[in-house]
Amino acid sequence: MANIKLKEISTRAPKDLNKEETKEKLTGILAKLDQLQNLLYAESIHSVLIVLQGMDASGKDGLVRKVFTSMNPQGVRVHSFKVPTSEEASHDFLWRIHAAAPSKGMIQLFNRSQYEDVLVTRVHKMIDDKTARKRMKAINDFEQLLVEHNNTQILKFYLHISPEEQQERLQERIHNPAKQWKYNESDFQEAKLWDDYMAAYEDCFEHCNDVPWTIVPADQNWYKEYVIASALLKTLEKLDMQFPGLKKG
Amino acid sequence: MANIKLKEISTRAPKDLNKEETKEKLTGILAKLDQLQNLLYAESIHSVLIVLQGMDASGKDGLVRKVFTSMNPQGVRVHSFKVPTSEEASHDFLWRIHAAAPSKGMIQLFNRSQYEDVLVTRVHKMIDDKTARKRMKAINDFEQLLVEHNNTQILKFYLHISPEEQQERLQERIHNPAKQWKYNESDFQEAKLWDDYMAAYEDCFEHCNDVPWTIVPADQNWYKEYVIASALLKTLEKLDMQFPGLKKG
Repeated sequence: MANIKLKEISTRAPKDLNKEETKEKLTGILAKLDQLQNLLYAESIHSVLIVLQGMDASGKDGLVRKVFTSMNPQGVRVHSFKVPTSEEASHDFLWRIHAAAPSKGMIQLFNRSQYEDVLVTRVHKMIDDKTARKRMKAINDFEQLLVEHNNTQILKFYLHISPEEQQERLQERIHNPAKQWKYNESDFQEAKLWDDYMAAYEDCFEHCNDVPWTIVPADQNWYKEYVIASALLKTLEKLDMQFPGLKKG
Repeated sequence: MANIKLKEISTRAPKDLNKEETKEKLTGILAKLDQLQNLLYAESIHSVLIVLQGMDASGKDGLVRKVFTSMNPQGVRVHSFKVPTSEEASHDFLWRIHAAAPSKGMIQLFNRSQYEDVLVTRVHKMIDDKTARKRMKAINDFEQLLVEHNNTQILKFYLHISPEEQQERLQERIHNPAKQWKYNESDFQEAKLWDDYMAAYEDCFEHCNDVPWTIVPADQNWYKEYVIASALLKTLEKLDMQFPGLKKG
């Protein structure tokens, strides 16, 4: 994925798309996803890894709630990666990631992921470009391992919001009592590094290219949810899964 | 490491080596190792992974007991990899391996390892040659990850015994009450596949070559212990470690 310029990609739904119709379609997609997730679990041949990345307030948590709440939690797991604990930091950066990889039959969501190790670390100059490239190589190898050796379908989504939308949502976190728990003093400091983050993401898209990213216009939740649910549906339908018969013996 | 022919490599110590002198040397080496392990732990910059492979009764357990008992168990961990559990089998083959990788400051021993997935599985035709090659590629990538991203020193030892020595030791497991707990009915069946195992090992040495293997003549325990302890000492000495000073702040 060379030469992605995030500034040139719209953060909004196509203008001719009808919101109500799209929401209705989403309802149908979610019902199908529920069926297919059940089949994925029963068959236990494939696994699915969904990587969610995006700036603060880009709507990662909301996406998880909206799209995955309707699936059987026995077959769906979410892992939010925070700043590494001291035990995690005393291992290679993929150690904690690998431990959370999906077993066969499972859908695993990464709310933030291995990519933070080439994003936030890079913006804050905790690693140099050479280390970032080496990490990207390691990430590609790691994802190939999952794909080749655990039948993992990997979907990577970048929730693409505008800086204006982000500011609005961060302000809401201060003023809306139901959202104040999400407020973090450092969010506004991080927001000032917007351009640096965009550059780090663009470089990441260019070099972590074994499994392509989907840039999801994410200023409107209904469109973001529709795009991601549709992509997952397409992936699951392609697997051509079947319920296993009675076990022999 | 191309064209290793195990049959052509002696399983015994060089004839001119004095056993008693070597044992004395080993005692000195173990004392130094104890000091260096303490330094490794205090410094917490590097980590060490020791991979032990070998046929049944090649002396892996004995090696661990002899060489590592004298080190601080807080800094040394041993993981014996058995037939995968159903949870382990529902992940890629490196998942359980990665979880056991050493954190910085630690010496980790693998008693059997990731290599079983290109050895026993191959001899029993559970995987084909193409899968074996893909796994070897994945193993190389994985080891590179540990080396580059967790300062891991990897040492890989193949305990090389003769089929005659193996038969003798397996017989002893039947007749020696102190060793009967190690006896496994399938051991003699496996022993019949000797040539297939040798071929799988040779192929493994040839293709898993990012970190070279040491073929350790292992018919005599005193020599095997000396070779491995010496190699570890050399590795640790090269690290040029220092006790960290007082922490700032």
